[in-house]
Amino acid sequence: MITFASDFGSPYPAAVRGVLARRSSARVADVAHDLPRQDVRAAAFWLRFVLPEFPPAVHLAVVDPGVGTGRDALVVRAGEHVLVGPDNGLLFPPARRLADGGAVEAYVADPGDPASATFHGRDVFAPLAADVHGRGSAPADGVAAMDALSPAADPVGLRLPEPSVEGSVARGEVLAVDGFGNAITNVPGDVLDGRDRVRVNGTPAPVVRTFAEVDPGERLVTTGSHGNVECDVNRGRGDEAFDLAPGDRVTLRF
Amino acid sequence: MITFASDFGSPYPAAVRGVLARRSSARVADVAHDLPRQDVRAAAFWLRFVLPEFPPAVHLAVVDPGVGTGRDALVVRAGEHVLVGPDNGLLFPPARRLADGGAVEAYVADPGDPASATFHGRDVFAPLAADVHGRGSAPADGVAAMDALSPAADPVGLRLPEPSVEGSVARGEVLAVDGFGNAITNVPGDVLDGRDRVRVNGTPAPVVRTFAEVDPGERLVTTGSHGNVECDVNRGRGDEAFDLAPGDRVTLRF
Amino acid sequence: MITFASDFGSPYPAAVRGVLARRSSARVADVAHDLPRQDVRAAAFWLRFVLPEFPPAVHLAVVDPGVGTGRDALVVRAGEHVLVGPDNGLLFPPARRLADGGAVEAYVADPGDPASATFHGRDVFAPLAADVHGRGSAPADGVAAMDALSPAADPVGLRLPEPSVEGSVARGEVLAVDGFGNAITNVPGDVLDGRDRVRVNGTPAPVVRTFAEVDPGERLVTTGSHGNVECDVNRGRGDEAFDLAPGDRVTLRF
Repeated sequence: MITFASDFGSPYPAAVRGVLARRSSARVADVAHDLPRQDVRAAAFWLRFVLPEFPPAVHLAVVDPGVGTGRDALVVRAGEHVLVGPDNGLLFPPARRLADGGAVEAYVADPGDPASATFHGRDVFAPLAADVHGRGSAPADGVAAMDALSPAADPVGLRLPEPSVEGSVARGEVLAVDGFGNAITNVPGDVLDGRDRVRVNGTPAPVVRTFAEVDPGERLVTTGSHGNVECDVNRGRGDEAFDLAPGDRVTLRF
Repeated sequence: MITFASDFGSPYPAAVRGVLARRSSARVADVAHDLPRQDVRAAAFWLRFVLPEFPPAVHLAVVDPGVGTGRDALVVRAGEHVLVGPDNGLLFPPARRLADGGAVEAYVADPGDPASATFHGRDVFAPLAADVHGRGSAPADGVAAMDALSPAADPVGLRLPEPSVEGSVARGEVLAVDGFGNAITNVPGDVLDGRDRVRVNGTPAPVVRTFAEVDPGERLVTTGSHGNVECDVNRGRGDEAFDLAPGDRVTLRF
Repeated sequence: MITFASDFGSPYPAAVRGVLARRSSARVADVAHDLPRQDVRAAAFWLRFVLPEFPPAVHLAVVDPGVGTGRDALVVRAGEHVLVGPDNGLLFPPARRLADGGAVEAYVADPGDPASATFHGRDVFAPLAADVHGRGSAPADGVAAMDALSPAADPVGLRLPEPSVEGSVARGEVLAVDGFGNAITNVPGDVLDGRDRVRVNGTPAPVVRTFAEVDPGERLVTTGSHGNVECDVNRGRGDEAFDLAPGDRVTLRF
């Protein structure tokens, strides 16, 4: 299986699906093509969240503000999974999660001579993902069989920011806002254990397990399905009600 | 085949696709992930419209305002089809249509111990759909082979509202508004047979077979591909031109 | 493989996917369902751009302002590919590209007795695409094996407009605006070779290879991945910054 995630919108992903179908008989599963545009950190958060649900696969992931500038093309082996995409840090947060404490090995791939300067998803990364998939009987086996890979000497690292928790105060950041306006932080949900109320940057809200515990239009703070604290409104937009955007600092006081 | 419909937006459905791929080799067909958010009735209308086009399949459908509140997880057998989703009525309008006059049998499934309180699409319903699909050589066979199902004693029923037609007046409701602004009612299209003009809540419009029969920007009333009366504007929004929203009453006078 | 492109939005494409799954075991790849609504010319541009990336396939493509008016249903053979859709010109720009200088043969199909007047994607074209795919071991073989096809005597032709290039002036048109606001012209990108600056309808902009060469918010002109000149803004909307919409004339002066 090859999964495919990007910030390409529509209809550009279709060209990539075409290349994958032409070069591979693998099943292709779309992840999303509305990843936060050119926001490598937020996109990495989403990939870290969803890719571990898949069986071993080649994961093609392209959010690539530096397309055409000479940044490398990477193939990353993480446990039984392989990730293919640009060398801008995007692949590492999901790779570490997929490796589950094991090694994450990054290789630089020869990009060949791409047909365009602006669509390496089609011209570089999709052929690479198809090639890796086709080389081995399992996704990770394909990496060893690739000729045109060399160990990445100094790949762009990316670690999602770490929160701090001291006593009844947790400090972190907003990693992403989803399409419903839920503001997702990097603070682990277990800080909410045993709490009934919290102030988020001064704004009070109840701590609940499910949206249905508050009335429509009311603020709530809960542990999202990614395991992190999120600031929401039942049937409304948490980002607006809490005045939060990706990258904003959040302080939770209990 | 497993079909998958939700109101999850993006990228949450990818986590569900991952679970399905990990637990099943079935083909997965996305139905839509922008079903009307938390609107069980409108979502049921759309499922009743599109699911009967599919061959026998396990249909995973999640529009679930009560997630995390202890509502049951249902497996519903309808003819050769199986539906999996929350016990809130969502599955019954499509199930009755799929059963085509035959029996609709509802079972409660053991939800296990879900990893999250808010994402039962991933944690409860997707594993259940994969399990049902894997148990039998045909989708409906899997139901009998499942150990953890018990007959649903009192599932939440849902019937889409029935219209009334008397002489030259038909009364009904708007069930849904599609992405183009077409306001779809529950009134059967045959009330339009032989009619040239209609007043919808007092607003006059021609009765036509195709959009192209009126000029761009003009109102029209026609029978949609679901067989119901819809109130539209050629290359415009019928909901605005007729001032109609889901749940609104409509009176058609000929 | 069957590919499927439309301007149907959501959830209507699901009904078509159901018909395809019911009548065919072919893999189905979605191209896009937000093709420019009822804009045959812009949709034809996108199909010409993406369909050649696919291996030989049956390409179902429906942008059909004349649905229900009696326009013919076409099956077009182009090299090893087959296109199925309405007789309004949509299929010819991609067909010529797919044929790569070879013959493009158009046939009229018997539409049968469609269940609806407004959803021929479901009722006419999807069954036709499944039938063509099922008749032959390769997509194009199915055409010869179809009984209900007759040569199209006078199909609606469509040629995307041709630009003119004289000395340091190129004249053309905007074919499409993508979801990011990039205004894509019909002018071939090689007019930019060796140029540093250009005026687009009087508005000056640098000629660059990649978006990253200008600051966020700045205008740029580049060759897109389709090979044509496009007028863009880095992390912004080129259509607004250059005041361009599909169909507008553009004059490039170097």
